[in-house]
Amino acid sequence: MMKKVVLAFSGGLDTSFCVKYLLEQGYEIYSAIVNTGGFSEAELAEIARRAENLGVAHHVTLDETDNYYQTCLKYLIFGNVLKNNTYPLSVSAERISQAVAIAKYAQEIDAEAVAHGSTGAGNDQVRFDMVFNILIPNVEIITPIRDLKLSREEEIAYLKERGVEMDFQKAQYSINKGIWGTSVGGKETLTSHQALPESAYPTQLTKETPERITLHFKNGEPVGLNDELFDNPVHVIQKLQEIAGAFAIGRDIHVGDTIIGIKGRVGFEAAAPMVIIKAHHALEKHTLTKWQLYWKDSLATWYGNWMHEGQFLDPTMRNIETFLTDTQKTVTGKVHVLLAPYRFQVEGIESEHDLMSSKFGSYGEMNNAWSGEDVKGFSKIFGNQTMMYRLINGEDNAK
Amino acid sequence: MMKKVVLAFSGGLDTSFCVKYLLEQGYEIYSAIVNTGGFSEAELAEIARRAENLGVAHHVTLDETDNYYQTCLKYLIFGNVLKNNTYPLSVSAERISQAVAIAKYAQEIDAEAVAHGSTGAGNDQVRFDMVFNILIPNVEIITPIRDLKLSREEEIAYLKERGVEMDFQKAQYSINKGIWGTSVGGKETLTSHQALPESAYPTQLTKETPERITLHFKNGEPVGLNDELFDNPVHVIQKLQEIAGAFAIGRDIHVGDTIIGIKGRVGFEAAAPMVIIKAHHALEKHTLTKWQLYWKDSLATWYGNWMHEGQFLDPTMRNIETFLTDTQKTVTGKVHVLLAPYRFQVEGIESEHDLMSSKFGSYGEMNNAWSGEDVKGFSKIFGNQTMMYRLINGEDNAK
Amino acid sequence: MMKKVVLAFSGGLDTSFCVKYLLEQGYEIYSAIVNTGGFSEAELAEIARRAENLGVAHHVTLDETDNYYQTCLKYLIFGNVLKNNTYPLSVSAERISQAVAIAKYAQEIDAEAVAHGSTGAGNDQVRFDMVFNILIPNVEIITPIRDLKLSREEEIAYLKERGVEMDFQKAQYSINKGIWGTSVGGKETLTSHQALPESAYPTQLTKETPERITLHFKNGEPVGLNDELFDNPVHVIQKLQEIAGAFAIGRDIHVGDTIIGIKGRVGFEAAAPMVIIKAHHALEKHTLTKWQLYWKDSLATWYGNWMHEGQFLDPTMRNIETFLTDTQKTVTGKVHVLLAPYRFQVEGIESEHDLMSSKFGSYGEMNNAWSGEDVKGFSKIFGNQTMMYRLINGEDNAK
Amino acid sequence: MMKKVVLAFSGGLDTSFCVKYLLEQGYEIYSAIVNTGGFSEAELAEIARRAENLGVAHHVTLDETDNYYQTCLKYLIFGNVLKNNTYPLSVSAERISQAVAIAKYAQEIDAEAVAHGSTGAGNDQVRFDMVFNILIPNVEIITPIRDLKLSREEEIAYLKERGVEMDFQKAQYSINKGIWGTSVGGKETLTSHQALPESAYPTQLTKETPERITLHFKNGEPVGLNDELFDNPVHVIQKLQEIAGAFAIGRDIHVGDTIIGIKGRVGFEAAAPMVIIKAHHALEKHTLTKWQLYWKDSLATWYGNWMHEGQFLDPTMRNIETFLTDTQKTVTGKVHVLLAPYRFQVEGIESEHDLMSSKFGSYGEMNNAWSGEDVKGFSKIFGNQTMMYRLINGEDNAK
Repeated sequence: MMKKVVLAFSGGLDTSFCVKYLLEQGYEIYSAIVNTGGFSEAELAEIARRAENLGVAHHVTLDETDNYYQTCLKYLIFGNVLKNNTYPLSVSAERISQAVAIAKYAQEIDAEAVAHGSTGAGNDQVRFDMVFNILIPNVEIITPIRDLKLSREEEIAYLKERGVEMDFQKAQYSINKGIWGTSVGGKETLTSHQALPESAYPTQLTKETPERITLHFKNGEPVGLNDELFDNPVHVIQKLQEIAGAFAIGRDIHVGDTIIGIKGRVGFEAAAPMVIIKAHHALEKHTLTKWQLYWKDSLATWYGNWMHEGQFLDPTMRNIETFLTDTQKTVTGKVHVLLAPYRFQVEGIESEHDLMSSKFGSYGEMNNAWSGEDVKGFSKIFGNQTMMYRLINGEDNAK
Repeated sequence: MMKKVVLAFSGGLDTSFCVKYLLEQGYEIYSAIVNTGGFSEAELAEIARRAENLGVAHHVTLDETDNYYQTCLKYLIFGNVLKNNTYPLSVSAERISQAVAIAKYAQEIDAEAVAHGSTGAGNDQVRFDMVFNILIPNVEIITPIRDLKLSREEEIAYLKERGVEMDFQKAQYSINKGIWGTSVGGKETLTSHQALPESAYPTQLTKETPERITLHFKNGEPVGLNDELFDNPVHVIQKLQEIAGAFAIGRDIHVGDTIIGIKGRVGFEAAAPMVIIKAHHALEKHTLTKWQLYWKDSLATWYGNWMHEGQFLDPTMRNIETFLTDTQKTVTGKVHVLLAPYRFQVEGIESEHDLMSSKFGSYGEMNNAWSGEDVKGFSKIFGNQTMMYRLINGEDNAK
Repeated sequence: MMKKVVLAFSGGLDTSFCVKYLLEQGYEIYSAIVNTGGFSEAELAEIARRAENLGVAHHVTLDETDNYYQTCLKYLIFGNVLKNNTYPLSVSAERISQAVAIAKYAQEIDAEAVAHGSTGAGNDQVRFDMVFNILIPNVEIITPIRDLKLSREEEIAYLKERGVEMDFQKAQYSINKGIWGTSVGGKETLTSHQALPESAYPTQLTKETPERITLHFKNGEPVGLNDELFDNPVHVIQKLQEIAGAFAIGRDIHVGDTIIGIKGRVGFEAAAPMVIIKAHHALEKHTLTKWQLYWKDSLATWYGNWMHEGQFLDPTMRNIETFLTDTQKTVTGKVHVLLAPYRFQVEGIESEHDLMSSKFGSYGEMNNAWSGEDVKGFSKIFGNQTMMYRLINGEDNAK
Repeated sequence: MMKKVVLAFSGGLDTSFCVKYLLEQGYEIYSAIVNTGGFSEAELAEIARRAENLGVAHHVTLDETDNYYQTCLKYLIFGNVLKNNTYPLSVSAERISQAVAIAKYAQEIDAEAVAHGSTGAGNDQVRFDMVFNILIPNVEIITPIRDLKLSREEEIAYLKERGVEMDFQKAQYSINKGIWGTSVGGKETLTSHQALPESAYPTQLTKETPERITLHFKNGEPVGLNDELFDNPVHVIQKLQEIAGAFAIGRDIHVGDTIIGIKGRVGFEAAAPMVIIKAHHALEKHTLTKWQLYWKDSLATWYGNWMHEGQFLDPTMRNIETFLTDTQKTVTGKVHVLLAPYRFQVEGIESEHDLMSSKFGSYGEMNNAWSGEDVKGFSKIFGNQTMMYRLINGEDNAK
């Protein structure tokens, strides 16, 4: 009996090669594409068609968009996660969600092996490997591209020999589209000094006139846009992406530490993620206390880094998610945002939990709660230890 | 003999009131204005003239710009400090530097008292009080505005009765200009939901055509702009402000936690600080290791908060400055930035210390240092503990 | 009508003074003693008798022991909280729990004022003030001892004049007994260089022969001792205190930062708390992952400090409690401890969640999950970035 | 010409095997033992003799004790580093220092390879591999024991066949002695529930009568013991070890996370390290400010973990060392410690920098710096934000 392998299949050159290669190794191939919100119906159908043409035994589309939001994106919003204050982890988080779905599918159909098309140079190999090692430790992992170290040309020749016809033209820019942003790699990102050209970005500027929108949050989750409330936050993200994408908002280049220790540089566009994160953060600045903001920031920074490194399944991540969720009890309200070409501005917020306003009176009245004398006393005590430190140790510590 | 008081004098209504009030209390007034880069010569001369007309015994301008950069701004750059990822601490840092200069001056002239014009509502009262309590604990602190709780109208009446003539018209927006940014307060910042109007910002958009600039850093400090190198980083900041300010870059509204616990909202414009911080950060992302970036971020966040709260003199701050300085050994190189109306984009960097490039070969060759097998092993070991945790505790921890 | 005041009454000199003083100020006094586990029935009855003799309108004993455990002690155990790795926060945590109970009682009986007997020198005044300011901001706080700055002798004279008879002899050591430890202050703790004499500790060594005990934990809470399981963790603490106290275990001197900035030194004995915390920690080291331990430690350190400073009501504390609780899912098992005179030793643990053992095979078999080759690969990748950093920047960074 | 290999040689079974094995592979062997303070002259001579008998081309003793202290131990003291609040990193730190010395020696003699006798199960393999990968990336690493997976019996047979005579009896406990503590492994440490028997510890209790000692610190470094000052802190450690070791102080069992993800359990005795760390910490609690203590603790915890994981060469470690050193400016003074069988007690400190005492007056006078009114004001402002949070969000957040 043939051994079952689940192949994470994207329809590109590498995973097409994997199909033919694994067939010749005698595997029965169950190809799977995981949609975390980056593919249209038409694209998914086309990928299925390709898989079947290449000869897989069975192809499946695993729709993980909602699950991806619920188990992952939600917490990236709660934590305002931007890797190195820059990158919304567009690809990093998605890969893990995809790997988890593939692992579960492999378990479901009792596969003896899983295969992925990663090379030996990037982050994704580690993310796939680790999730598989953790979730399905007894299932073999096969990585033909990494193991055979074939060049692009060799892969093409191999497929042509086997009669495969597809568009072998390499795209000028490698695009990775997901619901939480699209990464863009190309010749400029291989070195350090250049930006991507305007044309490299898949979403082009199509609106010039600035526009005001209002985002609604409930317990930290985006639940509405302008006058419309949505049951599913995923739809808020998608709708916002349509509107804000047209302004070419949320483009940047990030250079970061890959899991394997080298620096990697990548362009991205992420209109909805950037607007949501900055709007959410503004709402939090109004509704959370100083130390809630401080600790959220500390934990979320580490959470984002650890997610990026493929460590999503570490139980520490669940503990941090619990913390983040608990902080969101008062993060409910509206955020007003101005969208303009290539930029946006959070203009203000409205919330019942706004610590700037009081149900019990205006700011002036609240102020009656303390006096100038109280502040004098506070200042004295607040600086007490440093005052003593200087008296005891002398002036040289004060510069 | 009359008691000497040093008055932190800005020439505005509050400190003008203080002069007249302290004179009547029988003090010999030594007024002092501390310039940390926000005033022109003409403005300083005008302030001196006003002080003398009001009847101070002596007026002095304390030029602290270089000292402010050396003891404070430098570290805000090293730490990429933006309070709540937003605000470059424009006013916070400056006030402390001013308070320290006033304290030293009071010590120098053997003053029995120092006075400042702060009200009981904001951050500045605490910063002044604390620095004075710490540096000159035996000198009395006098705060007439806070103590008397006079209204604006009462202050004006008091001054008019004493024959003082000045422009008593309240500006529509309260502007606080410094080398590290200008704060803008007005009726919109008193509530939570509105942005400042375009006209509220002192620096207006005067350039439309995008422009590329290059910033040079040496050990983390800005030392050059385009083709020009400067001895004094202060001049780089000033020069950059001229160029980038014309694009109306670096505007935002920040809501943050005041030292006394209430939320405060303030608009600001800070073209040079925002460009420098983001450019510096980009250079660091290329030249520092993952954990250097992580710990710099943790320490600098706390450093910025503690600075904001007036705790600049805590010896912990010196320890952190030592840490930050030590990380900057490799932060040398050029950063290319695109300036455009209301926005800018860091385009790339060039550095001998760039961890993306190697003196010893291209990226591809460097890659020979490890194999796909190595990464497989890495992935296995890297996920080992979580794998065991799941085997021992069951699936429910993996979601 | 007389104004109602709730007085936190301990029966000592200071609060006895407060009764007489407040009576003469025309208050109707509702005295309250909050028991958080430090008092016996007889002691509480004696305190009630004193209060009534002094002339209070009503005296009440608020039994908060269970509530104190549930809202506070539990988390100190989850977090293994020892201030500066030394002090189990015996008094700090208790005071806050007491202040909260007093505030609620004041609210319940519609008191116009609350009074406490704190002086102006210590931590307790801030803890009481803050909790009252936060929970009952409209209720006046009266602190006769702090305000009048009376000497001990003046207080005694005042009480004698009013016919009060009590033991006015000052104890050589000031003792503060609670369920989470007993603090001991005396002449040695006023300076830095001396230990407390053996006789200063209220619990004396009465057992010499070492004894083995077993503590049972369930989800981080102590639920059993030796062969007995208890419904209420409070009873485990009390029972353990009896046994371990006889060995004079858990004595130490702590010097720490008071809330008002000075250093304070205090002796303490805390047999049960020290044994429970170290036993709990040992169980965690076996059952939690590396990063769970790391982040628990970071958050709990801050949590303990913030608790110490009276900031128990900050919502950040609730968020951290949620985090800590979530980490305890696997902290279930037995811990074996050797008790000996003045010391104890955690000897080992048994747990189904022990990451050292596997349900699925012995350690040796588990080891089949990876090979020496895997570790080689791991080591290579794990050191990759530092290797490149050195190649690019030269030897001087390696020492 | 034969290829040169540097072999880290300890004289035990594994590295003896390596000699014979590498000889047969045609290597010219340069064996090296690195002394970081754990070996006597006689032991080192014996090891040299064995190496030569086995047939190495050259044997060398690298004395790294002082260097180990200067580059590593010093910072473990500054940071009061105890892994998981338990283990002074006795072996972890030493291994890295040894690996660095071996790497430098290999570089010096232009070796083509380095070899170490680690198995595939522990931490040391990673530490050796990583340091070699980083410092001498072009030198091959050979690990015969790990690669061949030989059993103890096979190694013995192999050596016997080649005429090697040595004591092949396996010691009941595996002992690893160093200047910063001795680790003890045996059958009890292979499972979780048992302590080591008294007899397993190499240093036995030989003193019963408690003894008082005084440690002198200068800028954080131990410089004297009782009445004697030493030029070299290493000698203080050694002298203290003699005295405190006789009390069988500093024994414990640690279970921790190995670098490869499994939990590892080990007994240790570390009299001098434990006494020095606790004494140093006590001195710091008197001489540093609250936030210096806080940040030292945070950074040192991570520093110790990262050291443990073999990442000593990460430049972040140098940055943290700079921080730690900067905090030690005031950590100068005497610490009094009581030594007793199996335990010790820090009794008190004396320091010119003690923040508990003032050059300028007694505690009572210092207290004149603030009043009860000041503290009232402080308490009000310090709790302001939480008070408002509750007013705005209701009671449910207060519990």
